[in-house]
Amino acid sequence: MNLAILGMGTVGCGIMEVLSMNREKITGLIGEEITVSHVFVSNVDKKRDADLGGAIVTDDINSLLDSDGIDAVIEVMGGMETTRDVLIQFLEKGIHVISANKDMLAKYIDELALVAEENDANLLYEASIAGGIPIVNAIEHGLNANQIHKVMGILNGTTNYILSKMTKDGWDYARALDEAKEKGYAEADPTNDVDGFDAQRKIVLLSRLAYGRKVDIDEVPVTGIRNVELKDISNAGDAGLKMKLVGKSEFDGENVSMEVAPVLLPDEHQLASVEYEKNAVYVMGNAVGETMFYGPGAGGPETASAVVSDLINCARSRGAARTGTRPEAAAHVKASDTAYSYYIRFSSDEAAISNHLAGMNIEYRLVDAADDTTVITGPIGQEQLKKLESDTQHGIRALYQVEGN
Amino acid sequence: MNLAILGMGTVGCGIMEVLSMNREKITGLIGEEITVSHVFVSNVDKKRDADLGGAIVTDDINSLLDSDGIDAVIEVMGGMETTRDVLIQFLEKGIHVISANKDMLAKYIDELALVAEENDANLLYEASIAGGIPIVNAIEHGLNANQIHKVMGILNGTTNYILSKMTKDGWDYARALDEAKEKGYAEADPTNDVDGFDAQRKIVLLSRLAYGRKVDIDEVPVTGIRNVELKDISNAGDAGLKMKLVGKSEFDGENVSMEVAPVLLPDEHQLASVEYEKNAVYVMGNAVGETMFYGPGAGGPETASAVVSDLINCARSRGAARTGTRPEAAAHVKASDTAYSYYIRFSSDEAAISNHLAGMNIEYRLVDAADDTTVITGPIGQEQLKKLESDTQHGIRALYQVEGN
Repeated sequence: MNLAILGMGTVGCGIMEVLSMNREKITGLIGEEITVSHVFVSNVDKKRDADLGGAIVTDDINSLLDSDGIDAVIEVMGGMETTRDVLIQFLEKGIHVISANKDMLAKYIDELALVAEENDANLLYEASIAGGIPIVNAIEHGLNANQIHKVMGILNGTTNYILSKMTKDGWDYARALDEAKEKGYAEADPTNDVDGFDAQRKIVLLSRLAYGRKVDIDEVPVTGIRNVELKDISNAGDAGLKMKLVGKSEFDGENVSMEVAPVLLPDEHQLASVEYEKNAVYVMGNAVGETMFYGPGAGGPETASAVVSDLINCARSRGAARTGTRPEAAAHVKASDTAYSYYIRFSSDEAAISNHLAGMNIEYRLVDAADDTTVITGPIGQEQLKKLESDTQHGIRALYQVEGN
Repeated sequence: MNLAILGMGTVGCGIMEVLSMNREKITGLIGEEITVSHVFVSNVDKKRDADLGGAIVTDDINSLLDSDGIDAVIEVMGGMETTRDVLIQFLEKGIHVISANKDMLAKYIDELALVAEENDANLLYEASIAGGIPIVNAIEHGLNANQIHKVMGILNGTTNYILSKMTKDGWDYARALDEAKEKGYAEADPTNDVDGFDAQRKIVLLSRLAYGRKVDIDEVPVTGIRNVELKDISNAGDAGLKMKLVGKSEFDGENVSMEVAPVLLPDEHQLASVEYEKNAVYVMGNAVGETMFYGPGAGGPETASAVVSDLINCARSRGAARTGTRPEAAAHVKASDTAYSYYIRFSSDEAAISNHLAGMNIEYRLVDAADDTTVITGPIGQEQLKKLESDTQHGIRALYQVEGN
């Protein structure tokens, strides 16, 4: 089986490593050797960690598109519309495509899936959600007897690393971000991670997969962790809560409510013990109930684990569709109508807040009144929350949703 | 597609429920209706919760074996050799078999798998390990790019419920067991669960699957939780450790070391936060690193989730093997040669223990010296551990391995 790899960065090199170190097992499962016949890179002269063997290394994508000998393409190069257009051309030739490109997929997966279907090709993307965690496989195959109504996850390792450092070591945001950059977890421009966009893409892909509905990424509200203060992490910790950047989505059979935001989880929650660069996805199905899948969200061989599993499953199924039904219907993203508890830090003093909340019939317990007044409320509906948030008199300095266990 | 179900207890009724409530999704995935055409039970007159529709309900297994219209058989009736013989006859007719029968499979899976292979039938058993957690699917498909070298899990909900009650509520073993019986988590004769045999079967099935080696269940040492004392749970808690009944297995490429025993896990370990009747399986692969899979270990619809997913995947693959390569080679179970830390409670006083351990060059930290002397040692090799255990002078009252994080 001849394989083309587009991109030879961290994940590309990880794929070469995994194909080499587990060659015997992989060949045994597929029944034939995998040969990396072509590698597409933007700079053919760049020195790379991977031994590319006898592969044709080229910066000319057309030479790959014109080649007759390619059975499957792995795309780990990133990029948006140009990449989409290239992958569509491969799919149109009936060539299977495996992509780790969440940015592009979150926007164009429906378009690509249609072309794949029309040309009897597989479009596989395990690596695009939560790195090495086999969550696509779990939802499409392991849990496919269920109707899934909730998906929630720690989907970004960079922000989880930063929040873990703040929580466990008491570092402030800036110092934790610097360390994440040094360790290679954060990029020079960390926007995609710290502002929540990366998690947004993944919760969109997860929700589409779990509910079988198209979701428009532009409808999904997102709040990052740039403004998270140590004070709130520490207050919440005293109340038995841990801050995590969570992508969450619920489906009522028609609409989804969906959001990416820093959320407070009870210490006993399965997601609360997911630390540093690790990811985890929590899935609720109507037969199985609660499940959770934990593992590495990034990394070369870790992500390659997902890519190569896609490749093995694609090869073993001999063309039979590995992917679930392609969604036809779209679901609109609406605000959640669930009542949640909230952690709120006000600038006013305790007496004023006590009056204020009593006036709105909101129950609460006091967390801290040393400087600001910090409370955790009882369940509040969305109407009432808006009213609270729009009040300017009592100066809300921080507000986080508390997720039930 | 015509389906026969053998057994109509909790899981059988769960299967009927899941097939009914998720009918539309399941039919969509398979492309045809599932009809439960036959149900085999030992007592046809017994009242059942499930609506069996138009199925032929019979206590005559031969009428099913003689029938021409059955495409797949689900076995959820239990039993050992008789059940094996019946399933072999179905497989010989090329009929796919899905079984949740861990007791039988742990002993006879290699025999059944061979017959399945010879007759182009699928033998699927997702529900036999950790109930609703799709761990077979994860290892066979999601992580199949990896060589797996360690599997470890909380594989029995009954014992985990009892240990959680002891740990969280300070109940003693007898009271927690009584409550587990009342809630239906433990059977009248709880031997299989509390003595660790149920977990032993599951770690055997998991290891075979993960390493691709046959494993003889009789070689696997097992210690249950009957003798666990509250005192040790509480001491360990003070030291940041939680007691769990763990099935653990490691593979060095040739041999496996394997054991079921109560083990102490650091509070931060992913398995430590798995409470009450929940199960979880921890898998380490050479590409992906650490992963964990969490969910319900038992229950009607929960287990049915796994059974019905097997059915869907079997039907969708149209006969293409869903199962990995059938192991030919056997791995012998040998004692682990890893050095571990141990929690040890001695009857002697602190001074005597201090001398004793110093004489053996064993480092330790004192956990409690109020009555007995309790320590947590540094890493001890197996030789030295045996020497320690054989010493009768200092009265070892409790000894538990401490698992690293």
